[in-house]
Amino acid sequence: MIASPFAAGLDEESVEAGTTLAPRFDADGLIVAIAVDADKGGVLMVAHMNREALAQTIETGSAWFWSRSRQKLWRKGEESGNTMAVTDLRVDCDQDALLLKVKIAGDGVACHRGYRSCFYRSIPTGKAPSPDLALVFDKLMPLRKS
Amino acid sequence: MIASPFAAGLDEESVEAGTTLAPRFDADGLIVAIAVDADKGGVLMVAHMNREALAQTIETGSAWFWSRSRQKLWRKGEESGNTMAVTDLRVDCDQDALLLKVKIAGDGVACHRGYRSCFYRSIPTGKAPSPDLALVFDKLMPLRKS
Repeated sequence: MIASPFAAGLDEESVEAGTTLAPRFDADGLIVAIAVDADKGGVLMVAHMNREALAQTIETGSAWFWSRSRQKLWRKGEESGNTMAVTDLRVDCDQDALLLKVKIAGDGVACHRGYRSCFYRSIPTGKAPSPDLALVFDKLMPLRKS
Repeated sequence: MIASPFAAGLDEESVEAGTTLAPRFDADGLIVAIAVDADKGGVLMVAHMNREALAQTIETGSAWFWSRSRQKLWRKGEESGNTMAVTDLRVDCDQDALLLKVKIAGDGVACHRGYRSCFYRSIPTGKAPSPDLALVFDKLMPLRKS
């Protein structure tokens, strides 16, 4: 068992206004992490990190996550080739969310469905949700040619 | 008890490739929601929605969240005046995250600390995290004049 390299137990003012990294992992030991395209700015994907994934991301400058479905540490792109080089890593005010600006290698696809971003469908707004509501695919979203 | 207006129990292919909204709320009944500046594209904040917050957001086109700390439904900006008009609401591939492109009213500040975005501090990368690691404030981040 290696000691955590991250601070914990700070008061709210220190967490929000200080320079100490004290990430607030949830009951499962996870923190949400958002990957944004460093060049185009769009949100690519949302994933989770545990302590080890965050430590690896900080040390290597490449994005590591914790896969909840596979229950394993996962270097993004290790199989697809779409690794993510982190150009800016940020933490939010109460330190329960992370933001990664990334450059994607390979064919630039972040989503396992082949889209550049996982957010390829819009939810229509303006009336109460009902069974009639139909998601709208973003026809401009680049899709990997298979 | 009102029936949920959202589908549930779909197979993976339907969730990821279909047009049915079937948001995957977690064990606490929450789904993560990311607000992005509709004009400038930057990530402003990360919050959570329960079923009612999502239904209200869809119906009104204004951002509603569930406050975990206050345990109440919360229309963003109801006190500060910084309401968020949703110009595009999206769901991700496996429907466990939401993305809101928003125009902020009032003074354009999303974070309760007075910054435009909650992500006002960077984590240095390139070496293993240690107690020496110091977060770096974004000196260009607009801050509300008090």
